[in-house]
Amino acid sequence: MEKIASGVYRITAGEPEKFTPVKILKPVPSENLDRLPDNPCPFGDGDIKKKCAEGSCTLEIPLGDDEDIYGFGLQLKSFRQSGRKKVIRVNSDPAADLGDSHGPVPFYLSTAGYGVFVDTSRFATFYCGGSKRKGSRQERENYPSVPNEEGHHFEHKAHSGNMFVRIPSAKGADVYVFAGSTMKDALARYNLFSGGGAFPPLWGLGILYRCWWHTDEEHVLSMAKQFRDEKIPCDVLGLEPGWQTNAYSCTFEWDSEKYPDPERMCREAAKSGYKINLWEHCYTHPTSPVFKMLYPLSGDSYVWDGIIPDFTLSEARDVFAGRHDEIVEQGIMGFKLDECDGGDYLCTGNWGFPEFTKFPGGLDGEQMRSELGLLYQKTMLRPFEKRNIRVWGQSRASHALAAPYPYVLYSDLYDHSDFIRGLATSALGGVMWSPEVRQTGSREELIRRLQAVIFSPLAVINAYMIPSPPWKQYDHDRNLAGDFLPDAQELTNMCRSIFELRMSLVPYLYEAFYVYYSQGIPPVRPLIADYADDMNVRDIWDEFMVGDSLLFAPVIWGRGDRRNVYLPEGKWKNFFDGTEYDGGKSYVFSPGLTEILLFARDESLVPFADPVLCSGADTVYDVSLRLYGKHGACRLIVDDGTSLRYRTEKPDVLLIETDGKDVAGFEPNERYRFKDIIAF
Amino acid sequence: MEKIASGVYRITAGEPEKFTPVKILKPVPSENLDRLPDNPCPFGDGDIKKKCAEGSCTLEIPLGDDEDIYGFGLQLKSFRQSGRKKVIRVNSDPAADLGDSHGPVPFYLSTAGYGVFVDTSRFATFYCGGSKRKGSRQERENYPSVPNEEGHHFEHKAHSGNMFVRIPSAKGADVYVFAGSTMKDALARYNLFSGGGAFPPLWGLGILYRCWWHTDEEHVLSMAKQFRDEKIPCDVLGLEPGWQTNAYSCTFEWDSEKYPDPERMCREAAKSGYKINLWEHCYTHPTSPVFKMLYPLSGDSYVWDGIIPDFTLSEARDVFAGRHDEIVEQGIMGFKLDECDGGDYLCTGNWGFPEFTKFPGGLDGEQMRSELGLLYQKTMLRPFEKRNIRVWGQSRASHALAAPYPYVLYSDLYDHSDFIRGLATSALGGVMWSPEVRQTGSREELIRRLQAVIFSPLAVINAYMIPSPPWKQYDHDRNLAGDFLPDAQELTNMCRSIFELRMSLVPYLYEAFYVYYSQGIPPVRPLIADYADDMNVRDIWDEFMVGDSLLFAPVIWGRGDRRNVYLPEGKWKNFFDGTEYDGGKSYVFSPGLTEILLFARDESLVPFADPVLCSGADTVYDVSLRLYGKHGACRLIVDDGTSLRYRTEKPDVLLIETDGKDVAGFEPNERYRFKDIIAF
Repeated sequence: MEKIASGVYRITAGEPEKFTPVKILKPVPSENLDRLPDNPCPFGDGDIKKKCAEGSCTLEIPLGDDEDIYGFGLQLKSFRQSGRKKVIRVNSDPAADLGDSHGPVPFYLSTAGYGVFVDTSRFATFYCGGSKRKGSRQERENYPSVPNEEGHHFEHKAHSGNMFVRIPSAKGADVYVFAGSTMKDALARYNLFSGGGAFPPLWGLGILYRCWWHTDEEHVLSMAKQFRDEKIPCDVLGLEPGWQTNAYSCTFEWDSEKYPDPERMCREAAKSGYKINLWEHCYTHPTSPVFKMLYPLSGDSYVWDGIIPDFTLSEARDVFAGRHDEIVEQGIMGFKLDECDGGDYLCTGNWGFPEFTKFPGGLDGEQMRSELGLLYQKTMLRPFEKRNIRVWGQSRASHALAAPYPYVLYSDLYDHSDFIRGLATSALGGVMWSPEVRQTGSREELIRRLQAVIFSPLAVINAYMIPSPPWKQYDHDRNLAGDFLPDAQELTNMCRSIFELRMSLVPYLYEAFYVYYSQGIPPVRPLIADYADDMNVRDIWDEFMVGDSLLFAPVIWGRGDRRNVYLPEGKWKNFFDGTEYDGGKSYVFSPGLTEILLFARDESLVPFADPVLCSGADTVYDVSLRLYGKHGACRLIVDDGTSLRYRTEKPDVLLIETDGKDVAGFEPNERYRFKDIIAF
Repeated sequence: MEKIASGVYRITAGEPEKFTPVKILKPVPSENLDRLPDNPCPFGDGDIKKKCAEGSCTLEIPLGDDEDIYGFGLQLKSFRQSGRKKVIRVNSDPAADLGDSHGPVPFYLSTAGYGVFVDTSRFATFYCGGSKRKGSRQERENYPSVPNEEGHHFEHKAHSGNMFVRIPSAKGADVYVFAGSTMKDALARYNLFSGGGAFPPLWGLGILYRCWWHTDEEHVLSMAKQFRDEKIPCDVLGLEPGWQTNAYSCTFEWDSEKYPDPERMCREAAKSGYKINLWEHCYTHPTSPVFKMLYPLSGDSYVWDGIIPDFTLSEARDVFAGRHDEIVEQGIMGFKLDECDGGDYLCTGNWGFPEFTKFPGGLDGEQMRSELGLLYQKTMLRPFEKRNIRVWGQSRASHALAAPYPYVLYSDLYDHSDFIRGLATSALGGVMWSPEVRQTGSREELIRRLQAVIFSPLAVINAYMIPSPPWKQYDHDRNLAGDFLPDAQELTNMCRSIFELRMSLVPYLYEAFYVYYSQGIPPVRPLIADYADDMNVRDIWDEFMVGDSLLFAPVIWGRGDRRNVYLPEGKWKNFFDGTEYDGGKSYVFSPGLTEILLFARDESLVPFADPVLCSGADTVYDVSLRLYGKHGACRLIVDDGTSLRYRTEKPDVLLIETDGKDVAGFEPNERYRFKDIIAF
């Protein structure tokens, strides 16, 4: 066992493989990791056992009967993993609860206050205590069965075994143990070990609207104008597949008929404060200008007639980033990295590269399937890092050590429960997720989905299938036909209000993300992160801490308008009207359609800005201080909001503390002006 | 390459593993295999390539651009597999199209007229031509892309690569190639290689009704009486988990409170012609009388507190079969072998033994997961083989070389499309499947499901969740409450008519099963089996040849009452009224609720019996000969209907040929009397 940082231990079981997340991504731990108090490793030397068999290796890691297990990155279908089996395999459209997801991570957290990261790019299987083994403590103690409701005929065992991790093809692995004082502290250490959480530019916290895939320059600019005319907040317009000469696979060349002058388009859009984001994937079409250069630097399989660049090779990164440097030079401010997951589920057939693909850098297809998302993300950051620009993009695949990468996951699936569950699970594995909103089946569905997406790391409206915004017409076919809703104006007003709530929270969220960066604590996280000792929250995947002061309980589409909200210990107040609730209890709410279940912790202070339409480098926010209780404090980050300077030079962290008497004491600065204190 | 039978070749790629389906199950090929004409192997020496990597081995098998691929055993979610990826992994509730199923088989068929069986118990992945590789013919020829409806931006490749088979943990495998004159012939050779298809006792073709799981002896016998009173055909009554002292895991001991005298119950039921079938699984509870003996003969993991007997060991088979011999001695006539699959999908948590389980016979958990179903089936046949008795049971898991095992697969899933698709796919892999009927959401659903299940290898009504038959009340809650439908009598009559159709077809089906046994051709099979050259049938998974003369097109619940029926080349006649249809065309039908879309091939003869309630050793069927066209022929099997004598002594195969003039020429025998000829 080797101690590698404060409360972080590496235990090497057997012979680790040559290619693993740590070895491929080479994370640079945050310097703040070693500022945390030390904790002893929960496992002793020799506690982690290894058995190798033909073609695989299995680790046994202690697990107590009273521990509950969470993690494995983004998981759409389940939350608490105790007793379950999860295969860590990157996959698109993960329609079953097998472990597959866009961002699965071989990392788990225990309610006992530690985290375990198994450094492998293999499709490892985690058996989370569901296996009683011959010779085990559980057998010797005849651990009592738990009868289910059918009585003695149907006794099932509760989870009562150790954790087993089966790693195919490997002869061993490094196991990193994060010893926290709490589960949240363990998670924070994992994120700091990864490099600290991603810190968005201010504009990344605004609204991202992805345009119809049949769009052209004229249509993009007309959307830009429409949103400003109608006062719809929007920071980023996203272009979908149609912008290239060929999309499946990609050429990374503009279709000059639709986009005769991309620089002009970016310039025009920027005049109204917009950034332009481009969809693409990395499978490179034979007609791409970089195909020939990438051919020897790519895997030995094709995907959609395109080659797969091997981003472990610096030459491949140079060629690929070089081509994108030209695109960024035209004014593009971010990318949506699609299809880097691979599809075993897709109903229309499977796609992706096989596991037996060989890459010139040495990885096989299985390892690359795990790492492609992050390698691609890393490569695509280079044009921006070169320009000292922060970005905030989308990616459809992620894996271990993802925290510092400024990309938010998404999916082609759409079940709202799954989407909200994803918000909970992603936060426990160092990945970010957005429950994006597309067209819907009703106005109620549109509103409920929007109310949830604004509390995620990226507020995405993905209108790629519809030419007009869903608030003009939420129905796909009618939207295509240009047949707008009779009450489109009213619905537009309702949606605008939701977006404005997000924009009002930008200063608050910006600080929460700075905490993610500097302390490793995710800005939006399920209650279990903060309240691991409260047995009531162990299965609650649909309530979130947002920053340190807010608790958000989305009304999930498809589950009715009534919902149960459990408020943890302490006192809570309705964010909007201050109604007080005692914690440690559940309440049933039936919120009206425009009502959002948002609670502030008692004795807290929430900065709340007048909503802007978008955030520029020179945006100044007019902030009300919403005080819940007699006294509260909050922090605000004052920096340029757009550059990478925060990495080398700590931004100003403004501590605001008030007992509600007077706002006059708070001096304005280049980013914030203080309007008033609103006390609840 | 080694020729091992007529048109059957074994190609050894690398070093095969010690434990494989062939080595574990030791199939005895049917002697009829070598009576088939010889065919050359479609592959030359060296055509099958092998590459080994760390912990896995990949075979490349030629595949032409114009070939379509079917197979992989039971597949509920997809039919034509060209271009797809399938992982052969036994699994319960396979809710996604990954390859998992209750009976997946590493065997595929090509429309070019051959079959390939990869002899492995590993979770092998088949990439069915979806991968274009560097250096491949497809790359060199720049095989044209197939644009989809979105135009050039979204070109997707059609399948255009070779077959790749990735076998984890292995260093090689034996590949068996079945060279047929047609695809059906290739399938038949695979089944004959496996030992020939299973041949049911006559009573196996009747109705199996599984009783409520909270049943007791009195309730079972009251169901028996009710069916006879109401003239509902039924051959077998099934008991569910409640019969044992403990069910999860199993004790194989009667709960004497509910079943004070099992022998008496069996005897009483037998008086009205019933057999009794028992549910169980093989995970053996510590309180079972055989636990101690099986402990050293079992794997090193528990499942539900039960040990897993290693049926590769003759001692384990002796102990386990010995205990069941006592149960069979009490009069039990078959078993439902549940839970031998293992659950990665189950929403309530995963269960089963881990892949790293070690069994004393040498298999690991992955290999045993594949083989457990058939090893368990094989073990459970011993008490019956000893008594020279044919049985017909149920099993929830199967795999390669299953054809001779008299067990029909089932699932806890219930989507009717999936269930019908299973009927199509199972037939192409030597496994049998029943789209069982449980409670339903409506009378229409009940009728449509019953109309389909009677054309399957086992007509199962699985009423385990409801105390009364679904025709008294199809709704679960009302059935439990004893609240019968106002039109229960009418619905009972409708259901009885459906069962009577099945019973009328028993002589016809019995002969079709004898063909399965002796010639390897499955009795119920999708059109592609017989019409592989007809491009119109390649995606038709919902039309079936039943025997050689009938074509059945189920109305699938949930897809409306209208359906398209494609009739292949030749002329066809409505089975019931003789309406004639030209083949090579599609027709749209809107069958009324009691109407079944059943067609007879023109110039065919179908034996059709007066329905009996059940089939005993001395049952004599009164047969009408339904003649479609001017001249027709059929065969009838005359044997004892219950013993294993057919294996050593060929039964009488009666050839009936008529031009419709006179029935008098057909002499009655101990099994059949001939009533009349009905000409259409």
